[in-house]
Amino acid sequence: MVNDVTEYDVVGIGNAIVDVLAKVGEGFLSERGLHKGDMTLVEAQKAGEIYTDIIPEREVSGGSAANTVAAIASLGGTPAFVGKVHDDELGQEFQRDIGAAGVDFYTAPLMQGPSTARSIVLVTPDAQRSMFTYLGASIHLTADDIDEKIISAAKIVYLEAYLLDDEKSAEAMFKAAQLARKYNRQVALTLSDTSCIERHRQQIKDFIHSYTDILFANDDEIKSLFEEDDFYKTLDLIKPEVEIAALTRGEKGSVVVNNRIKIFVEAETIENVVDSTGAGDVYAAGFLYGLTHGRTLGTCALIGNIAASEILSHYGARAEVSLRGYVRNKLRNYGKTL
Amino acid sequence: MVNDVTEYDVVGIGNAIVDVLAKVGEGFLSERGLHKGDMTLVEAQKAGEIYTDIIPEREVSGGSAANTVAAIASLGGTPAFVGKVHDDELGQEFQRDIGAAGVDFYTAPLMQGPSTARSIVLVTPDAQRSMFTYLGASIHLTADDIDEKIISAAKIVYLEAYLLDDEKSAEAMFKAAQLARKYNRQVALTLSDTSCIERHRQQIKDFIHSYTDILFANDDEIKSLFEEDDFYKTLDLIKPEVEIAALTRGEKGSVVVNNRIKIFVEAETIENVVDSTGAGDVYAAGFLYGLTHGRTLGTCALIGNIAASEILSHYGARAEVSLRGYVRNKLRNYGKTL
Repeated sequence: MVNDVTEYDVVGIGNAIVDVLAKVGEGFLSERGLHKGDMTLVEAQKAGEIYTDIIPEREVSGGSAANTVAAIASLGGTPAFVGKVHDDELGQEFQRDIGAAGVDFYTAPLMQGPSTARSIVLVTPDAQRSMFTYLGASIHLTADDIDEKIISAAKIVYLEAYLLDDEKSAEAMFKAAQLARKYNRQVALTLSDTSCIERHRQQIKDFIHSYTDILFANDDEIKSLFEEDDFYKTLDLIKPEVEIAALTRGEKGSVVVNNRIKIFVEAETIENVVDSTGAGDVYAAGFLYGLTHGRTLGTCALIGNIAASEILSHYGARAEVSLRGYVRNKLRNYGKTL
Repeated sequence: MVNDVTEYDVVGIGNAIVDVLAKVGEGFLSERGLHKGDMTLVEAQKAGEIYTDIIPEREVSGGSAANTVAAIASLGGTPAFVGKVHDDELGQEFQRDIGAAGVDFYTAPLMQGPSTARSIVLVTPDAQRSMFTYLGASIHLTADDIDEKIISAAKIVYLEAYLLDDEKSAEAMFKAAQLARKYNRQVALTLSDTSCIERHRQQIKDFIHSYTDILFANDDEIKSLFEEDDFYKTLDLIKPEVEIAALTRGEKGSVVVNNRIKIFVEAETIENVVDSTGAGDVYAAGFLYGLTHGRTLGTCALIGNIAASEILSHYGARAEVSLRGYVRNKLRNYGKTL
């Protein structure tokens, strides 16, 4: 299936989730005893109940690493994705959608068992989002799904910490990292979210120490990782552990730690932050695009900040314009080219 | 004289000063009513009196920009120097010495008038240094000494703010900057010292705004320039004025400001700081060597910090080993090459 001569900039490995967006009335949540705001993990039955009662407005392939590789494609890079869907309608939707985004995706779907993971995003009239995520097939990724040829064909293997939530997908993660080592490829890890860190702190620390070249995290995540309240202190704690740490700080921009060098890059100013979902994923995309195209670390972070600003200006984790054109125009203001 | 096909990395323009080092007894200074420690500007007569009474141990070409270009040569770069000596013994010494360091130097010497500038460095048994500087011929640099061919042959024209201390040498400085503009060369400026800034604050600000692409300063100098006590605030003040500001902070390392990007680079740790004279000059050399050899701004600062650490570990502003080998070895520790 995989062409031997293909060279990917990045292979992303993570949960394959379909984002289902729907508008609902103010009473919809309270009537069903659903928590408003935030993200809630739900079981199949509950997800099914919610799904039955809504009129989906849009269904797009989602998931953290999947968002990142889709954005890399939009920037003009060459990404692939490894993740597990079920061979159901949503799974086929995921496959079509991520393919249309320009991402190679070959992972064999589940033919039985849990259905494709979905994150049902309900938008109430007050413009608030409440997310209900059913992980379904996505956590059934196994070591068998990690194809040595794809790993060896990628400059960077990008993994999400969410993979540690299941023993089998964790095995897949370790296999990918070990293969990356074997072929002298770089391993990038994103810390996913603080609750994921709380569940797996020591395992994440070990994975960072043993396998990770490039770490992505936001300020809350890196502070949680080291159980350290002072963000600046975390910079020196992560320094000996990875070659590059790229840390986002919302409106404060991002910081890159590379040995004795710390690079602070201002956030791209936008008029109105509408929704921060996926901003971290798209920052990572911009950064990795820069890194796989020979840009300096400062410019990598600048590309990340600018790409993230596109995502912040509207609902949803996928860009609404070609990120390549968007980033190129903004970079010109700073005398840099994409 | 100047070969048309020569391409210089950097042409430095500044005061041509011979550093005369001598050891004296404890009573030498007090007997002559000389101020111990620091740098004192002296007239010809006083300089002559001191010079007559000492046994010079070493005489080396010095001056801020001259130190920088000599260090660039030691790093393996191709520098030239423009500065004024008298055709006397010290002037010939300067010419031989800077040539031996690997720096092209063609400026015609004064045939009459003040003698070659010297900085007499007296080291007392307590290892303290007291400097007495006579500027002599050095401030007789004029616009006629700025050769269009040399400026057009350099990637970067490096100027020291000390040139503003004399009207004629200031004219030379402006001519060099205008020629650099004409040939699309970059202009770098070093702020020299805080007393120089106090003498010429507005003129320096105007020169930075109108001509300077790359600014070098230490923390005291940049604070003095903006009359701002908070170093971090000066970073945002200098940002709109230059493409690159490279600011040294002693043991705190250095900071590079490039538009929205701020890069903090740790100092190279050395066991024993012996003498900081010339450390800023050699930092600038390392930075400019990196910049003219396509290194990232973070690596430029790292090279600067490492090169400066060599100078800090002994007396005198000139490296005692090949900076190329010294920096290359240290850079290896950080996974980088020179």
